[in-house]
Amino acid sequence: MKRLFAHAAQVVTCEGPGRARRGPELADAGVRTGVGVLTDGAAIVAVDATEALERRFPDATVVDCQGGVLMPGLVDSHTHAIFGKPRYEEQEWRAAGRDYMAIAAAGGGIHSSVRDLRARSEDDLVALALPRLRRIAAHGTTTLEVKSGYGLTLEDELKMLRAIQRLAALQPLRLVPTFLGAHEIPAEYRARPSGRDEYIALLVEEMLPQVRDQQLAAFADVFCEPGVFTIEESRRILVAARQAGLGLKLHADELRPAGGAELAAELGATSADHLAAISDAGIKALAAAGTVATLLPGTMLFLGKERQAPARALVEAGAVLALASDFNPGTSPTVNFPLVLTLGVSQLRLSVAEVLVASTVNGAAALGMADRIGQLAPGFSADLALYAIDDVRELPYWYGDQRCVRSWVRGVEVGAGESRGGIPRG
Amino acid sequence: MKRLFAHAAQVVTCEGPGRARRGPELADAGVRTGVGVLTDGAAIVAVDATEALERRFPDATVVDCQGGVLMPGLVDSHTHAIFGKPRYEEQEWRAAGRDYMAIAAAGGGIHSSVRDLRARSEDDLVALALPRLRRIAAHGTTTLEVKSGYGLTLEDELKMLRAIQRLAALQPLRLVPTFLGAHEIPAEYRARPSGRDEYIALLVEEMLPQVRDQQLAAFADVFCEPGVFTIEESRRILVAARQAGLGLKLHADELRPAGGAELAAELGATSADHLAAISDAGIKALAAAGTVATLLPGTMLFLGKERQAPARALVEAGAVLALASDFNPGTSPTVNFPLVLTLGVSQLRLSVAEVLVASTVNGAAALGMADRIGQLAPGFSADLALYAIDDVRELPYWYGDQRCVRSWVRGVEVGAGESRGGIPRG
Repeated sequence: MKRLFAHAAQVVTCEGPGRARRGPELADAGVRTGVGVLTDGAAIVAVDATEALERRFPDATVVDCQGGVLMPGLVDSHTHAIFGKPRYEEQEWRAAGRDYMAIAAAGGGIHSSVRDLRARSEDDLVALALPRLRRIAAHGTTTLEVKSGYGLTLEDELKMLRAIQRLAALQPLRLVPTFLGAHEIPAEYRARPSGRDEYIALLVEEMLPQVRDQQLAAFADVFCEPGVFTIEESRRILVAARQAGLGLKLHADELRPAGGAELAAELGATSADHLAAISDAGIKALAAAGTVATLLPGTMLFLGKERQAPARALVEAGAVLALASDFNPGTSPTVNFPLVLTLGVSQLRLSVAEVLVASTVNGAAALGMADRIGQLAPGFSADLALYAIDDVRELPYWYGDQRCVRSWVRGVEVGAGESRGGIPRG
Repeated sequence: MKRLFAHAAQVVTCEGPGRARRGPELADAGVRTGVGVLTDGAAIVAVDATEALERRFPDATVVDCQGGVLMPGLVDSHTHAIFGKPRYEEQEWRAAGRDYMAIAAAGGGIHSSVRDLRARSEDDLVALALPRLRRIAAHGTTTLEVKSGYGLTLEDELKMLRAIQRLAALQPLRLVPTFLGAHEIPAEYRARPSGRDEYIALLVEEMLPQVRDQQLAAFADVFCEPGVFTIEESRRILVAARQAGLGLKLHADELRPAGGAELAAELGATSADHLAAISDAGIKALAAAGTVATLLPGTMLFLGKERQAPARALVEAGAVLALASDFNPGTSPTVNFPLVLTLGVSQLRLSVAEVLVASTVNGAAALGMADRIGQLAPGFSADLALYAIDDVRELPYWYGDQRCVRSWVRGVEVGAGESRGGIPRG
């Protein structure tokens, strides 16, 4: 079925080569006026002057964009969207000055989510995730990476990954599964002298082969940070993951510059994420390797950190920059990806065009999909989001608002018939 | 008509004396379980165990809170919600390093909103404000202070205040009008050597008497900041405003500690607002005077400032702390007051109870209404907000989300029949 998306005030195409963008390429989001988008089923066929499309495709069903702004659906390339209970207690513990270690000692932190998740069934995880994914989709996100990592046993990690697989079929968002068995050394292994090595052996020798054999993940990720996994441990796990045919990601240099970015570059990882404490050498290494630098400014905000990742230095060094929400129950419980774009401008000092490309084309690159999603261009997936604004600069501007009114994934409307609020613009 | 609000997981009463709270009083938001709220028309009659209320008021219509959290409606005591065009260009100008002066030179800043507003009719201002107020109300705000200050001529200031007056009758939010003719020295006066004095004379001798005679404002406010109005000028204007019977507010010490807080205390102002650069002497003065310290953390976030107001020092000194959104087209275009509560915890290091009291009881105190609004308690206005969360700590936690599902002002439901998204919790 052909559809003509017409009468948008602006169409943000992000059109260009089907690969990661860097440097000056980031500064052009392809904002066009007077154009429409023609889709046929799951694919975009043409982006052209509306009248020309009307002539070429007189039988297309018109989708009236009512003077809003039409965009590629947002690509959120870093989330932990499968979890049980929210961890709201920790927010005020942090405000009161408790650090990461004190919160863990009080029963909070990642271990808290692990205990909670292990006690839940796969059905329960699916049921809890569904409304959260709907809230995420309601802001215009159309593709979402989702990590495991709150199981930390073979069975519980597979349970999480199966939940992601089931959710991919149950709801409209495109989900990209990442195996993050190396999120933390589980408490029961930490307690034993040889526990670290035993857990890493379990990861490499049992979990990764199972994940591969059952085709449950596209990527593997490691939380490389002093106190969690060291550089050497991370290298061992990622090399094994690469041998298992998975793409590589790395939680790197979030709190201290420990060489995580350099490791990601060395291994040719698809992305290195967080990077608030990245070193100059790390910046150069990422730029040289073409590894996507995925920044998560919402996390730093929610944690009350004064430091943000050096986004401008990364852009100037020629690194590929992506933005993501880090949606997770401990340090970034936001479903509002456009708010992360706001932070990209106000905290990271990016231009609006830069945050748009970083959350579409480069988000797709962080998932190895820049040739298929993230652009409104012929041959790309019909993933679109329509916002009730007059100018795309209003998307990061009205911070905390929900301006997305309709969205489509592979040409199928998300939540058709449901209201997203429907409040008129202003 | 009697209504029984029943079946909430928690009722946040904020119950206590009908006055500003300070120190340890801030830390108790009165979170109760198993209770209901009985309203009769515009007033709250009782807060008690649900079964007791059912027995006492068997004919009351039950409002099923469906296991959500019932709160006093939020009181947003500092906004500039009447404006024309959004000023989204300035966000990326700031990101690119342009300061306040450079933005003004490029045609932005307050003067830009002034030029725009002067060219608009009162009808136009009302029409533009309506959907913005609906978006604000959709997050659970029930009372909103609104300032003039983009007119800066007698006629244009009165036009703004009349627009507020009309809006108060046209839509459900309770609006509290503030005359802010002293928002800036208008450009046409700045250009003349004696212009500053002439404009202040106009404010004091013509505008204030008209505002008083036409009963168009409850408060007067001055933007006291180096480069705008000096301490001496601010004192002169506020003394005249007091003589005109208006309550006093002051934009004080936003960027530099210039003695604004001390002036507010000296004059017995109802509130001093912003305060990111307040001095220790200013903190002591506000605490001693009981002047409400109204903090606007969203503004500092949106401006990309690293500094926030010293909220903990204010609490510890015994000052009355309020939070507000500063909703305005230049430096805080957010309709999402709960996001400001998030910043209250993550940036200002307040507890959840403290941000709740600061945005209800103390917001009301900043408007001289703490005896009537901001609490769920007998005799208070039936201003309520219902959130689709299980625990009130989730309100600041799910940052950027919209969890308010229903709200009432003076017992009348806001936007009854409209959807706010209606997405299930999770």
